[in-house]
Formats: sequence, structure tokens, C-alpha cells
Amino acid sequence: MSDQPTACVLIIGNEILSGKTQDTNLQFLGFELAKLGIRLAEGRVVRDEPAAIIRHLNETRREFTYVFTTGGIGPTHDDITAECVAQAFGVPLDLNDDAVQRLQRSGRPLNDARLKMARVPRGAVLVDNPVSNAPGFRIENVFVFAGIPSIARAMFASAIPMLSRGAPILSASVDAFLREGDFAAALERIQQRYATVEIGSYPFNRDGRLGATLVARGIDRALLGKVVEEITAAITSLGGETHVP
Amino acid sequence: MSDQPTACVLIIGNEILSGKTQDTNLQFLGFELAKLGIRLAEGRVVRDEPAAIIRHLNETRREFTYVFTTGGIGPTHDDITAECVAQAFGVPLDLNDDAVQRLQRSGRPLNDARLKMARVPRGAVLVDNPVSNAPGFRIENVFVFAGIPSIARAMFASAIPMLSRGAPILSASVDAFLREGDFAAALERIQQRYATVEIGSYPFNRDGRLGATLVARGIDRALLGKVVEEITAAITSLGGETHVP
Repeated sequence: MSDQPTACVLIIGNEILSGKTQDTNLQFLGFELAKLGIRLAEGRVVRDEPAAIIRHLNETRREFTYVFTTGGIGPTHDDITAECVAQAFGVPLDLNDDAVQRLQRSGRPLNDARLKMARVPRGAVLVDNPVSNAPGFRIENVFVFAGIPSIARAMFASAIPMLSRGAPILSASVDAFLREGDFAAALERIQQRYATVEIGSYPFNRDGRLGATLVARGIDRALLGKVVEEITAAITSLGGETHVP
Repeated sequence: MSDQPTACVLIIGNEILSGKTQDTNLQFLGFELAKLGIRLAEGRVVRDEPAAIIRHLNETRREFTYVFTTGGIGPTHDDITAECVAQAFGVPLDLNDDAVQRLQRSGRPLNDARLKMARVPRGAVLVDNPVSNAPGFRIENVFVFAGIPSIARAMFASAIPMLSRGAPILSASVDAFLREGDFAAALERIQQRYATVEIGSYPFNRDGRLGATLVARGIDRALLGKVVEEITAAITSLGGETHVP
């Protein structure tokens, strides 16, 4: 999977780190990016502090094909993402006429706070927000989305046409009702034979029945089927039941 | 809050980035650390790749008072956290007699795969796991926990006596039924007057009623009460209803 585009999600917001809010955008983006053949390679969760946001933006935009930020693009004082992105790229934050027009559609008075949501780094293009009116934006390989999940999801859908895709990353899995320690050696031998397939073991406890979901991920559907077949045969030969979820 | 100990959570596992699994350990740790006066300052989500894990371990253990890792300490081939921690610290991975004894309690055959869970970096001390038997461990300022939430929580509880605490980070909040753009300026003026309090605005849509939860965080309970009072008065003067959650 080495020629897949890669991505990093930068989750911006004190509320995620304080425990107030459970992030769900990372899981959503990881799942959706895989369908587009883009490998979510890393996530970072950063506080509303300019120095930290700018540093992580600059580190990750150089390392990954795409960076998706969530959070911090509203009208309040703790919404500092756009300003930080501008600083990371060394460009001014400009009032964007198109964004102003979109905000006007809401019919609410366009005071300074609301106008802040129309300021984007110079060179950025807007990303549609069909849920509310304040847009996200893209500058080079960085996409800036809202933190509210319904809006982040809508912005991601708007951004899809802007993304280069790879071969979709597929998965196949089987549940094994056997303890990990009992099948780990057999599973490792299968992994060693299939370097292009990524095999993961995720233990579960279902009403006291211990087992693990064994997941094979890769871009070749037939090969994934073959790997899961071999895993199933190995589990069976060790006396474990299997179940295709 | 500048003299609080700080922490970073390093979430290790492809399943979190592929979208297969929703992480919940970050929120739990952020919430619990705040009670101990330890500020969760950053989170990172890393794939099961040695170079990435080692790099993030070394970056974060130097930057934060504590690093908590979750995931990758089971018996299967994709469990590589202990090995990576040893490499990050430049020490060998030793079989730990105490850990071997704990694993023996399970009554399962101690094959190579299970013995892997008894290998810890030289110099590490074990962290009890009252849920299953395989322990976590601590080396210097790095705590290594399982990824399964029930076990991660139990290991955190076991690790609490090893942590230096700060003044507990408290919060007070009020729900404002007013749009963020309508109160942002007033809220910013309040934030500017209270540098030691961190004020956040988190918009919501409750059955079509738009508003925001306004959260004040800090270590001085009386001051937080005063800030929330001022916020409430400001919202009211702008014609917004408020509700204490």
C-alpha cells in the first residue's frame, strides 16, 4: 500500500483533551479516506494554542499527502484555526467575498464575530458547507473543517472532488472464539507470507466468551479473501470456532 | 495553570486510524487527569509501525511530564509497543519474572506468544492489571497501557499513586440559547479580563434550538463561579436564555 496517498487528521480543541467532548471525526475520516484509497497514517489532538497548532500544521503538511483539521473555525475567541493556518503558510488572512456572501444568506447581522468566519488564508479555496453557511477551506494540501461532526462530514463530502485517490483500501474479517495467546503464532506465520496484507487482531469479550476479530486490510479483494480463509482454517485446526461478522 | 504537570496520550493501533474502532481512552484519560491536576496537553494516534511509534515516543516523552500509551501490548504480531518503548529508551526488552508469575495465574499454557506479554524494557516497573493478568508498565515518565478500554481504565487506576499531582482542574459551565455570533464579542471581553481562566464556547443544536455551552476551566472554584456569573449576565443582557446544565 506504499503508493497510496497518505493523510493526517489534526483535531483542534481543548474540549477534546479536557474530556468534555468525545471526538468522532477521526474515526469517520479514517473510514471514508480508506474508501478513497487514502491511508489515514496519523492523528494529532492539539489544544487551542497558536504555537502548538502552527507547529503541528507545519510538521504534518510536509509529511503527509493531505492534512485535515477539525475544529476552531467558529466566531468566538477560542476559534483560532484560520489565523494559525495563515501563519503556518506565512500568508495574510483575507476577507473572502464569496464567504461573506454565503454568511449573508443566514440573514443574521454580519458583525465582526461573524465576519471572522469569512476570513481565510490568502490563496485558499472555499469548501462548501451545506449544513450551515460558514465554509471550510483548502490551502495547498491542508483542508480546514468545522469540529461539529455533522458539519465536518458535510465539508468532507464537499472536499472529495479535490482529492487524489488511490486504490480503495478494503478489509475482510473473521471472528475467532479462541484466545489471542492460543493463535498468535499461527497468525504471525500467515502475516509473514502476505507482506501486502495488513493483519490485525482485536480481542473481544462477548458475554464472557473471549475471542478476537481478525482483520485483513489491503487493496486486493481476492487476496484478502484468501488470507481470511487461511486464518479461518488455522483457527479451526486449533479447535476454535469462527464466525464471519 | 502553567505549573500543572502535563501529559500526552499516544494511541497506538491501525484499527483507530482505519475507522474500525472508535477510541474512547483519550476522553477518559483527559477527564481523569484533570481531576489529578495534570493537564492533558496533546494526543497522537499512531499506526503499528516501529519507526513512527519510536519517533513519537521520543518527541513526546521529552516535551511532557507524562506520556500514556494505549494499545499494542497483547500477544499477537501486531502488538509491538513494548519493543518500541525499549528501542526508544535504548534498553533491552527483558523477561520480567513478576510478570511471568502474573501470567501463570491465568492457568493458560505460557507459550512464546503469552510470554511476550511478560517482556518489558529494562528498568520498567509493572502497572497492575486487575481485569486480566497481563500487566502494563512504567519506564521513567512513560506509562504503557492496554488499548481495551476496561483494561486501560484499570491500569490507569493502578498508576495513579505513581503520578505527581497538581491543583485539580475544575470547570463550570452554562448553556446559552443564543447564537455564537451574537455573543462572541461579549464573551471575548470576559476572557480578556480573566487570564487564568480558559473559556470555551461549544455550539449545540437541541431539537432545532441553537445555542452554545460556555465552559470556564481553571483551578480556582470561586473565580470560575464569578466568570460563569458574568457570562450569564452578558447572555441575558443580549436577550438570550441561559440554563445551568
